[in-house]
Amino acid sequence: MNEFELIKNYFQKISKKNPSSLQLNDDVFFNKKNKLVVSVDTYVEGIHFYNFIRPDLVIKKILRSSISDLICKGVSPKYYFISASGNKKFFSKLNLLKMSKSLHEEQNKYNIFLSGGDTIFSNKLSFSITSIGFSNNIIYRNKAKINDDIYVTGNLGDSYIGLLILKDKINLNASLKKYFINQYYKPEIQFKLVDKLKNFVNTSIDISDGLIADLDKMINKQKLSYKINLADIPISNNLKKIIDLKRLKKINFISKGDDYQILFTASKNKRRIIKNLALKNRIKITNIGKIQNFVKKSSIVDKKNMKIMPKNKGYIHEFY
Amino acid sequence: MNEFELIKNYFQKISKKNPSSLQLNDDVFFNKKNKLVVSVDTYVEGIHFYNFIRPDLVIKKILRSSISDLICKGVSPKYYFISASGNKKFFSKLNLLKMSKSLHEEQNKYNIFLSGGDTIFSNKLSFSITSIGFSNNIIYRNKAKINDDIYVTGNLGDSYIGLLILKDKINLNASLKKYFINQYYKPEIQFKLVDKLKNFVNTSIDISDGLIADLDKMINKQKLSYKINLADIPISNNLKKIIDLKRLKKINFISKGDDYQILFTASKNKRRIIKNLALKNRIKITNIGKIQNFVKKSSIVDKKNMKIMPKNKGYIHEFY
Repeated sequence: MNEFELIKNYFQKISKKNPSSLQLNDDVFFNKKNKLVVSVDTYVEGIHFYNFIRPDLVIKKILRSSISDLICKGVSPKYYFISASGNKKFFSKLNLLKMSKSLHEEQNKYNIFLSGGDTIFSNKLSFSITSIGFSNNIIYRNKAKINDDIYVTGNLGDSYIGLLILKDKINLNASLKKYFINQYYKPEIQFKLVDKLKNFVNTSIDISDGLIADLDKMINKQKLSYKINLADIPISNNLKKIIDLKRLKKINFISKGDDYQILFTASKNKRRIIKNLALKNRIKITNIGKIQNFVKKSSIVDKKNMKIMPKNKGYIHEFY
Repeated sequence: MNEFELIKNYFQKISKKNPSSLQLNDDVFFNKKNKLVVSVDTYVEGIHFYNFIRPDLVIKKILRSSISDLICKGVSPKYYFISASGNKKFFSKLNLLKMSKSLHEEQNKYNIFLSGGDTIFSNKLSFSITSIGFSNNIIYRNKAKINDDIYVTGNLGDSYIGLLILKDKINLNASLKKYFINQYYKPEIQFKLVDKLKNFVNTSIDISDGLIADLDKMINKQKLSYKINLADIPISNNLKKIIDLKRLKKINFISKGDDYQILFTASKNKRRIIKNLALKNRIKITNIGKIQNFVKKSSIVDKKNMKIMPKNKGYIHEFY
């Protein structure tokens, strides 16, 4: 049973009478009357972050992951709450100081405010973050239209290379190491776009589990499918270098998750708006494919229009 | 370092610019502009609930504990989010079914709605619950006035006896066992009072850590102290029986926490209102002492006006 089945089988029923829950099938909770948008996520050592050797960076990573859920919906995060479980080794005075300093920096960067939470003694380290914003409307999942362009912001895959470096599974020079680890811990979430997205986006999600896994989630209730051009999927020059140097396959690096870029669809007549916005704000926004009728199967194709599949589609939260 | 010191030393500073956080020194977050009230709490096996043999009851206990934070502030809870960490043993299909059924019952009882959350694989079981309500105003901590009466709703101590039974530390007959275990898992939170509290309460808190620990927290920023009459502290007839039978001391059973009753202060001129409200709604509301100038030390006194102290003041969340 994975996370989706678990929610569907046991909890969707009891949230039915509550339209704000969006059937537990979106990134956020949205209560239109009170204009309230909420995201709740838990982060566990070894799953959502590799280890706690750099508490200053871990706290940034998970906080960005949390507010990314709101940002991809076109909602500015405003308040956040942290519930932290750990023991005195994790929460030493030095570590607390580092986390506090990092949170302060993130607050200034994203204009958000620590608003509460609690600390619990446990030998297993974990954090739950609740992020809250206010908005008259949000961008929903499952609102793609046929023939929509599919876009992704920024680059994909860098964060995964960072993780491989932390796991000692890939060897690179010091400057590349630094670059990718930085991308792993401090993903460049697209805060600048938050107020503009609603002007052109039909549906959206942030890429946390992997491009393909999140494409599937974005349109999981619709009779639609996608066609993605592998060559168009944006990767950094540094990742390009490594792929060439080590003779790797791009397909195996673009759906590993932890990117926290925005995946969205937009009508073709929005192309000019999107292009200008990207130029003006110096943000990479790439058209990677299109939405099609579900009679055609979802696919990623190479330059010869041949279907290719990655080794796996991304991170699925399996229970058993 | 305990929880208060941790918050004070490392996190109060970064929440300063955010008045809604109430300096992280209250039960809830309150944003007046958006009328939003939020409580975030984490519950860990072995700390906040004894074990997970009864998932149907554990989930009720922790959900009531969460919404109790809002209710004691005079705010009706409306939405809740659960972030659950555990493994497939904890989250077996049977356990999920039991929890789902219990949540459904609680939703009907308290008019609240499951609104989101997530599930995380971990061998350590824990839950984070975020509860949300909407209100123009709340009852704050640290607003007691000198000579205020101090009140507590319901009875104290039953939950602690329930825990002792679960731990096999006390032996009682089957019917008493059932009564106390029930009180441990399903504390009778004072949902009926939620809309009335603001009419007479000056300051309030819910008793989760223990009467004395929570009295201290309720007025921790004020130059005030309290005087409590031990004889007036309300306990159930069943607890009275056990104390008599086993020749125990009442003082050691009334500040153990997990009661989820409301502790509040009110001016003397509200006595009649409170008495009538209690009668009308058949809710026990007991005057147990008064607020005084801090020149007099806080105390609990027996019938001869002699100061007495319990073995400990309640649950303090110690880290080191």
